[in-house]
Amino acid sequence: ERAEKLVKAISGKGLHPMLKRGLYYCHRDFKLILDSVEKGENFYLYTGRGPSSGSMHLGHLVPFMFTKYLQEAFDAPLVIQITDDEKFFWKGQDLIGKEKLYAKYGGRLQYFNHLARENAKDIIAFGFDISKTFIFIDTEYIGEMYPNVCKVQEKVTYNTIKGIFGFSEGQSVNCGKIAYPAIQAIPSFASTFRKQFDDKKLRCLIPCAIDQDPYFRMTRDVADRCGEYKTSTLYSKFIPGLTGPGGKMSSSIPDSTIFLSDTSKDISRKISKAFSGGQQTVAEHRAKGANLEVDVAFQYLSFFLEDDAKLAHIAEEYQSGRMMSGQVKKECAAVLTPIVETFQ
Amino acid sequence: ERAEKLVKAISGKGLHPMLKRGLYYCHRDFKLILDSVEKGENFYLYTGRGPSSGSMHLGHLVPFMFTKYLQEAFDAPLVIQITDDEKFFWKGQDLIGKEKLYAKYGGRLQYFNHLARENAKDIIAFGFDISKTFIFIDTEYIGEMYPNVCKVQEKVTYNTIKGIFGFSEGQSVNCGKIAYPAIQAIPSFASTFRKQFDDKKLRCLIPCAIDQDPYFRMTRDVADRCGEYKTSTLYSKFIPGLTGPGGKMSSSIPDSTIFLSDTSKDISRKISKAFSGGQQTVAEHRAKGANLEVDVAFQYLSFFLEDDAKLAHIAEEYQSGRMMSGQVKKECAAVLTPIVETFQ
Repeated sequence: ERAEKLVKAISGKGLHPMLKRGLYYCHRDFKLILDSVEKGENFYLYTGRGPSSGSMHLGHLVPFMFTKYLQEAFDAPLVIQITDDEKFFWKGQDLIGKEKLYAKYGGRLQYFNHLARENAKDIIAFGFDISKTFIFIDTEYIGEMYPNVCKVQEKVTYNTIKGIFGFSEGQSVNCGKIAYPAIQAIPSFASTFRKQFDDKKLRCLIPCAIDQDPYFRMTRDVADRCGEYKTSTLYSKFIPGLTGPGGKMSSSIPDSTIFLSDTSKDISRKISKAFSGGQQTVAEHRAKGANLEVDVAFQYLSFFLEDDAKLAHIAEEYQSGRMMSGQVKKECAAVLTPIVETFQ
Repeated sequence: ERAEKLVKAISGKGLHPMLKRGLYYCHRDFKLILDSVEKGENFYLYTGRGPSSGSMHLGHLVPFMFTKYLQEAFDAPLVIQITDDEKFFWKGQDLIGKEKLYAKYGGRLQYFNHLARENAKDIIAFGFDISKTFIFIDTEYIGEMYPNVCKVQEKVTYNTIKGIFGFSEGQSVNCGKIAYPAIQAIPSFASTFRKQFDDKKLRCLIPCAIDQDPYFRMTRDVADRCGEYKTSTLYSKFIPGLTGPGGKMSSSIPDSTIFLSDTSKDISRKISKAFSGGQQTVAEHRAKGANLEVDVAFQYLSFFLEDDAKLAHIAEEYQSGRMMSGQVKKECAAVLTPIVETFQ
């Protein structure tokens, strides 16, 4: 309610459907962000992208669309980190069959840097406010980040990192994986962006998926001792993969994924084959209705269909068995296609 | 012999006394440096300094004097790393009684950065060839270093680092100590200095004290996989502290140390109290002679007295008991004073 009132006052907008529908469903200290806004102080947004492939997918739309909404709703500056170093530390060992690909770019790290630059173009395509948005790639912005990185690395022990990532005793972990969490932590410290923020000490809000919480719990643990505000966070559920509940959408599993480079034909075809919560036969479906919780097309609608009344109507009709899976899938493709096309 | 001939041909110099006397006493692949020089290829020198105090001491003279000799003897470019991040990771926890000191500089990391800048001035005072010498401070040059740092961090495991530093299982080590060794490693990769070396792939020679060998063994282990030459090294013994054998000269133990900021009076006073290899009474000394191995003044002469004949004469006279401790100490002060004064 407070957020709704503030957003209304600042930008005349309503709450975002993903907030109203509980897709962004939990937070840490979001209250403090609202306190700041009420006092007339600004805050900044921080989000990021791990460049594991050249083309982004529907799952990546969620944080970026929502972040764009927050930027407009609160008129807030935004920083976007692209973590080529992280992907190199975690995925750089995956050599088999990729030697030629890596060689083409001059090496494995350079390959991930190339993906980072491709992803930066995709992120630019979301249309953030260019006067208030700073996109940076780790290997290129480290010069500004390093003093804060040192401060965090000095305060976080190996045992803490081991706990966060669950390295087992016998496992031999590369040092990059231990050094890296500090690099994801410090964009939540305003002093990392002295130049961008004219030395102002702003609070930070991170909208991201729930799996990033361990990083930011660690970040919040050391913030005080670094002389910084504890960052606030807003966490979303995962958008399911096309194969249904339990499967995350993943660039490395094309069958699970709608890419932002897909054509409208691709989208229709992929959605038509998506996991359905409808019943096996028409008769059974009319009798029992659909299971919305596991229905991929309905889940996508709950993320991307803005019209509350229409979504409620579909839910009611589909759940009761009056609407068929095919109709919902068609509706879903009709909602996704213009979003993806606008992006393209 | 090969080195002597090459140095003669390049610069007309003889071998440095510290080499002839075995103070630089072991190496890894120094031969490959001489091979390069014989083929008319250049190499570069890399040395460094950990800024644990503002004023440097006699022990620091050894690597820098010797490095200066190597630069002149081989007409080689030189890079000098000042490791403010390292000292922050290893000494930054030592807070008691230092809160005010750290606050004066804006924080602990900034304090070590301040020391680094002070030390840089001292290093400049050695008079290296300014057209061929590049001095850099880690927190300020990391932007150029980071891609190579990532490559090393990704190839070195936590277990390897644990072995190098002997972290015990129970000990909770800060992540900086695990991230840092890669930062000391990569100045030995020519590609870290693309701009300075015009993209030429040069071999690297590191003159340093023997305690740095674990870092550079690790560096040599990963060099191939980073597409770099294995660095060559030349290792020296430690110059003893004033308190005698077994004690390293240390800035944090003033009694053990002649600082490069000491006056000639300070030097004479400190040397006169230094640990002696002479005997307790004159009669005993005349009979048994001195133990040169443990005599601090004689050891210092073996590092800093250039005149071979004179050193041999003192050794003979002192060992046989004909020369007294007081005379050797006076000689030592007379040799050190002009060196320190020239530096000042």
